[in-house]
Parts: sequence; C-alpha cells; structure tokens
Amino acid sequence: MSDGGETLGGVHTGHPAVMEGAEYALDLCARIARCTDVPGTTTRLFLSPATHEVHAILRAEMEMLGMTVRVDAAGNLRGVYSAETEDAPVLLIGSHVDTVPDAGAYDGVLGVALALAVLRALDEQRLQYAIEVIAFSEEEGIRFRMPFIGSRAVVGTLGASELARVDDGGVSVVEALWQFGLDGALEDAALSPETLAFLECHIEQGPVLEALDLPLGIVTAVVGQTRLEVTFSGKANHAGTTPMHLRQDALAAAAAWISIVERHARNVPGLVATVGMIQVAPGAANVIPGEAVLSLDVRHASDAMREQAVIELLDAAKREAVARHVTMSSRETSRQAAVAMDERVCGLLEDSVRAIGAAPHRMVSGAGHDAMILAGKVPSAMLFVQTPGGLSHHPDESVREQDVQAAFEVLLGFLERLDNVAQIAGEGPEEIRAEDEE
Amino acid sequence: MSDGGETLGGVHTGHPAVMEGAEYALDLCARIARCTDVPGTTTRLFLSPATHEVHAILRAEMEMLGMTVRVDAAGNLRGVYSAETEDAPVLLIGSHVDTVPDAGAYDGVLGVALALAVLRALDEQRLQYAIEVIAFSEEEGIRFRMPFIGSRAVVGTLGASELARVDDGGVSVVEALWQFGLDGALEDAALSPETLAFLECHIEQGPVLEALDLPLGIVTAVVGQTRLEVTFSGKANHAGTTPMHLRQDALAAAAAWISIVERHARNVPGLVATVGMIQVAPGAANVIPGEAVLSLDVRHASDAMREQAVIELLDAAKREAVARHVTMSSRETSRQAAVAMDERVCGLLEDSVRAIGAAPHRMVSGAGHDAMILAGKVPSAMLFVQTPGGLSHHPDESVREQDVQAAFEVLLGFLERLDNVAQIAGEGPEEIRAEDEE
Repeated sequence: MSDGGETLGGVHTGHPAVMEGAEYALDLCARIARCTDVPGTTTRLFLSPATHEVHAILRAEMEMLGMTVRVDAAGNLRGVYSAETEDAPVLLIGSHVDTVPDAGAYDGVLGVALALAVLRALDEQRLQYAIEVIAFSEEEGIRFRMPFIGSRAVVGTLGASELARVDDGGVSVVEALWQFGLDGALEDAALSPETLAFLECHIEQGPVLEALDLPLGIVTAVVGQTRLEVTFSGKANHAGTTPMHLRQDALAAAAAWISIVERHARNVPGLVATVGMIQVAPGAANVIPGEAVLSLDVRHASDAMREQAVIELLDAAKREAVARHVTMSSRETSRQAAVAMDERVCGLLEDSVRAIGAAPHRMVSGAGHDAMILAGKVPSAMLFVQTPGGLSHHPDESVREQDVQAAFEVLLGFLERLDNVAQIAGEGPEEIRAEDEE
Repeated sequence: MSDGGETLGGVHTGHPAVMEGAEYALDLCARIARCTDVPGTTTRLFLSPATHEVHAILRAEMEMLGMTVRVDAAGNLRGVYSAETEDAPVLLIGSHVDTVPDAGAYDGVLGVALALAVLRALDEQRLQYAIEVIAFSEEEGIRFRMPFIGSRAVVGTLGASELARVDDGGVSVVEALWQFGLDGALEDAALSPETLAFLECHIEQGPVLEALDLPLGIVTAVVGQTRLEVTFSGKANHAGTTPMHLRQDALAAAAAWISIVERHARNVPGLVATVGMIQVAPGAANVIPGEAVLSLDVRHASDAMREQAVIELLDAAKREAVARHVTMSSRETSRQAAVAMDERVCGLLEDSVRAIGAAPHRMVSGAGHDAMILAGKVPSAMLFVQTPGGLSHHPDESVREQDVQAAFEVLLGFLERLDNVAQIAGEGPEEIRAEDEE
C-alpha cells in the first residue's frame, strides 16, 4: 500500500480488527502447541510426525489469506502473499516451528503466528513488495545435535557432512527429509534473489525487557560466543592431615577464578561469562580436590571484546593456579563470531516501535536465532517480545497479550514504512532506508 | 628394668641390635603386606580371611618373645610380655592391622611391628610393668562403614546397634565375629584395670613432618571435626540471554564462599577447612547454575575454635548468598569433639625424642586413630613417623628406614623412662610422671 493515507489494517484507528491481532496470534500459538509427538507436552523435533499437523494448520491459514503455499526441500513451510505487481521484491518474515522437548508455546511459533496476523490485518490490500512467511523446519538443534538446519538450507550453507549426520535412531538428515515426503534438491529451499530483507519476531527468552518494563526490544546483533573447558590440577590429599599452607587445592583455585569471571563480566558492559559446569575429583568430603574441570561460556556483541575477555580470564586462571601450586590448562570447545543485524532494517523497526508510543530499546541477543543465519545473505533484523520471568524452553513459557499486541502493531507499522520507502523496487536492499536516514 | 645403669636393649651403645630394630619392623610390615584378600594388592577388611594369616605371623613372633597370646572376642590379637613381678601394671602398645582397599604396608601395621621390635630388643629383660601388644582388628571402618570396632570393643563402647550393623553382603558384626571363629562375650576384650597407659606409633599420613624435615612427631590431640552439607539455591537461566546483574547464580555464590573458607582457615592457626565435594545443577555449559551443593569439613584441636569457625563460615555463606539473591541452607552431617592425649605420657615421649637428638615436635592429628578411642579410658599418646609425600591409603605409601629407626629408639627410651618412674606400681596412671614434672 502506498497511497499514504489510511494506515495499514487500521492500526492507529482503534478498530476491532486491531485487538484481533494478538488474539489471533495467541490462538494460533495455542493450536500449534497441541501438535506434539509426546502427548501431554509440546515436543516437535525436526520433521517429526506432528510437524505435518503444524503444516496443515498454517497452510489452511495461509490459503485463507490467498497465499501461495509450499514446503521447500528442507521442510520449511513457505507462503507468499503477492505484491501489487509481479516481479516485485520480497520481504521474508518468520521464525521456526520445531521445539525443544517439553517446550512452551511461543519460542519460534509466535514469530510465524504474528506474521500471519499482520497479513490478515492487511485485509487483502497489496503492497509494493511481496511478503513470504517462512516457518523454519529446524532451529533448536535437538534431533541432529546441530541447530539451524532450516535456515542454513535457505542460505545454502548445508553441506554433505551436515546432511549425513544421523539422529539417535541412526536416521540421517537426508533420510529424515525423505521420510517426511521430501526428495527435492536443496536448491529448492534457496532464498529468492529478490529478497529485500528478513524480519524475525521472537520471544526474548531472557529477563532484560521485563526488568526494564518494556514490551519489545530491537535486536542489533547476536553475540559472538567462545566456549572453553578449563582444568585445574592440584593434589588430592587428606582434609584432616594436610595443613592449609601445604595444600594444592584444585577447587580453591577454581573457586577464586569463578569469582574473577563473575567480577570481570560485571565490569565489562555487555559481557556475559558463565561457569555452568564444574566437576571435582575425587569428590569426597574428607579429601582435598586434586582436580577441577569447569566450563566457561563467554559472549559479547563485539568479537574483539570477547576475545580480549577470554585472554584476560585465562591469564587470571593461571595466576590463581600458580598461587596454589596448581596447574591450569584450557581447551577451546567452540567459537562463533558475533553477527550484526542490518542497521537500516533496525531503523525501520525502531521508527515503528516509536510510532506505537513504546521506547525503542536496542539490545543484543545472547542466544542464536535464524536471523543470525539469514543475516549472512540478506539485511535482517529481529524484534524481541518480553518473556515473563525470562522463562523459556519450559511448558510455563509465557507472553503477555499486551506485548504481543504491541509486536503486532509494530510489525504492521514496519510493513507500512517499508512500503513508503520510495526506491525499493528494482534497486535492492541497499536502498531500503534511503529516505529515512537521519 | 630399673637398675638405672645399662640402657634397654643397648639403644645408646651402637650395638648391632639397634639397627636391627628398623630392619626387623620393616621386614615384618612387608610380610604382613603380603597377607591380602585381593591378590596383587594389600586389602584386609575387618576379619577378612587374610586376617588369619596376619595373626599367624604375629602370634609366631610373639611366642618367640615368650609372650602370652590370644585373640580377644572382638578379633584383636593381644600378646602379653610379662613384668618382673606378677600383678604389675600393664603398658598397652599397638595399632591396627586392617587396611583400606589397595592399601600401603605401614598404616597401622608399623605400630604393631615396632612394638614387637622393641620387645625383641629387650632381649628377655623384664620391667616393672608388663607390656601388652595389641593388633586392633578394625580401625578403617570400611567393611561396616563404622571405624574403630577393635578399639571400641576394648573400651567397652560397642553397643547392640553397632553389633547389628551389616556389611554389603548382609553379614552383621556379630556374624562376622562368629564366622572368624569368635563367639565369646565382648567383655573378654575389655581393657585390663591395671593398664597404665596406651601408646600408639603410627605413620603421620600427612606432609607436616616432611616439610619440617623431622623424623617424628608427638601427637598432643586428635582434632575435633564438623562436617556440613551446604546448599546454595539460585535460579537456572540461559547463559547468553541473562545479563550479569539479573543473575541468581548459585555457583558464583558458592565459589565466593569457597574462597572465604580457604582464607579463613589460612588465617586461624591450626584450623583446616575443606570443600571436597561440589555438585551444580543443571550442570550445562550454557546454563547458569541454579543450585550448588557443597561439603564442608572443619577441624581444629580446640572445639571452641572449631565451633566458632563453623559459625563464621556459615555467616559468610549467608552473606555471599544474599549478595546474589540466592538462598543458602546447611545441614550438619557429623560432629566429633577433639580428644586430648595425656600430657604426662606425651612428656615421657618428648624426653625420649630429645634423648635421641631429635627435635620433639608436638603436633595435632588431623585424622582419627585408635588412641583417640583409648584416651577416653586410659592415659594415651601417639608417636607419628614421617610419611614421605604425605602419601597414605595408597600402594605407594612409604616410610624412611632412618625414621623407623628413630621411632624404634624413642619407643625403647620410653620403656626405660617409664620403668624409672618410681611410683608406678599400684598407684595408677595418675602417677606415671610424678617425678618428671617440671
């Protein structure tokens, strides 16, 4: 829509259709939550039987909206809402519909449900661009212990080794696709070259927005992450007969270091560092620990800050070890660079948040999302919705209706703003905010 | 011997018999180490079949020394070397001959072997007091998960509930005694009312004497001990999406407290405090720990100092918890008072150590020993022998021959000094150092 007059779907009018946005999305989430492979829970791993039920529900909704629907070769359900004109560019919106075991109703699914809610609110109006809603087949990484299968197929980074991975039942990714009824070439899942941008709405799964009493957050980057295993090796000894000054206590060294990790991360804005795992040997009440093995997880939106933190924390670990005649060693178990979201798409989101009267809070995502994968190929952005208690990956995961309504209004406003950007057609994503720049 | 002239066994004469003291004791330890229920290791739990072999070896040695030998109703092997006169008081010397699984050759056994070595060096000379050598049947507490069965039978503190305890095979203590061939009333194991004192020589099983480059230590007390289980309960959360200031990290609280435990114990002379066990839940690299459960073991020779330390450490645990919005709870799993050794017997030992030209180092025992049990009934003392590397409860447990020789000479000197105390006979242990008091 580009007539510049009435707003899309009557967002700013107080029309009953507005309230239906959140109601519709939440109802759809509830219906999808009942699609499960484990009765009594919400559990849908990659391409599980219940995925067919989800697809049937979404396909019916999409067809009611006049969308062209297909399941791509990677199992992603995709529906296209056509533009005013043929050969128009495409805005991709969506999230994932797989879950962790015993999941909540909103992680991933809310982003798909809200995309359909805003298309429904368009009430068959056409825009300068088509809108493709995507329900990614796999993001959580449970079945094949490898996340982002759906979005990696879309950006073309799934290789032969990934496709050959097997699940606990010995079934490979390729066989799983075949069993689901899919046998096309993966190129079929590829992103349309006409794609303008990718927008993902997702629950925050953290406590930040709640602590700030905000409904929404604009994700500017997904943090980079380093994971290490750190081992302190001292000498196991009798807890009664070994005086304090003659000990080589691996746990004492580890504990001093954990406190340093906590203090360091508190002092560096945006840094999070976590020791989530610790095991000591021999692990008896009357024996001084001879060994302590710990995990360290360090994340920051700046790769340089993260790398610097890792260096300083490992130096500190060595110092605490030396002070106790203990040795320290470490092993990097994973490293992943930070991914920036697109500033122009974020800007459009920010304007849309401001327009509904909310504070446009920019934040980083501490967890990975499909948008992080898409960002490698297409300008991407994410809208976070407050998650009460930060609780996710749990049946009690929740959202507040007013926050979902706010997200609905922001997404609708975003569609309008994008539609009003003059130079979209034929000029590619670089231009999407040409007239909006301050 | 009380003629005041020639020293016992020629200790100070350089006679070849002197060197035979350590050699004999070490040879006996080596022979006993070969008595095992698990071939390739030294493993003798309470009343195991190999205990019969140990008894046969010791009985033969005792009988060669003209001693009257018996196995008491608790399985303790006891041999009496008679005095100059009948109805003379009795000095009890010994230690235990059971072991932990896969043990070394000296823990316990050395004290029995050295007792026989000094009697051998007496060369049939008689003293004003009889000497009863005791090889306690059980000290380690492995088979019935209850230590000191042998010495508790001697002091009469084994009750019906202890006798009814069963081992992993469902065999009770009473049945184990019966299977070993013992069915007498436990009163048969009771300490003779004529007992002057109990003296136990034992390896230190700690690093103190080695660090001081001393062969021997005089134990003035066995420390008291408190054991606690401490639980920090915070909130498990996502390691990426939860900023540092919104965490309730149970492990961070626990770690800060472990450092306080270490610092506190270093600052209080004689205190040892150990966190030997820690378990966190859920225990994944990318999840902030919601719970941490720790053990705390606190020991000191002064019960008041120990109790005070426990109070201060629990207060500190509460503070660290509160600072992180974490809760803390604790549960006392055991508490045992300190046991003082007898000052007069220690004094005689000290004089004997000084007489061989060694520094009479007084120390506390951080571990429990039979002497701690005997001390409740009879004046007791312990002589510690340096344990290279502090290594014990391990097949590589060792002693240096020169240190064993020093212990041998000190024990022989002790017998002489005790023999020279005028008022022994008929006046009881209170008088044993009447002429020695400074």
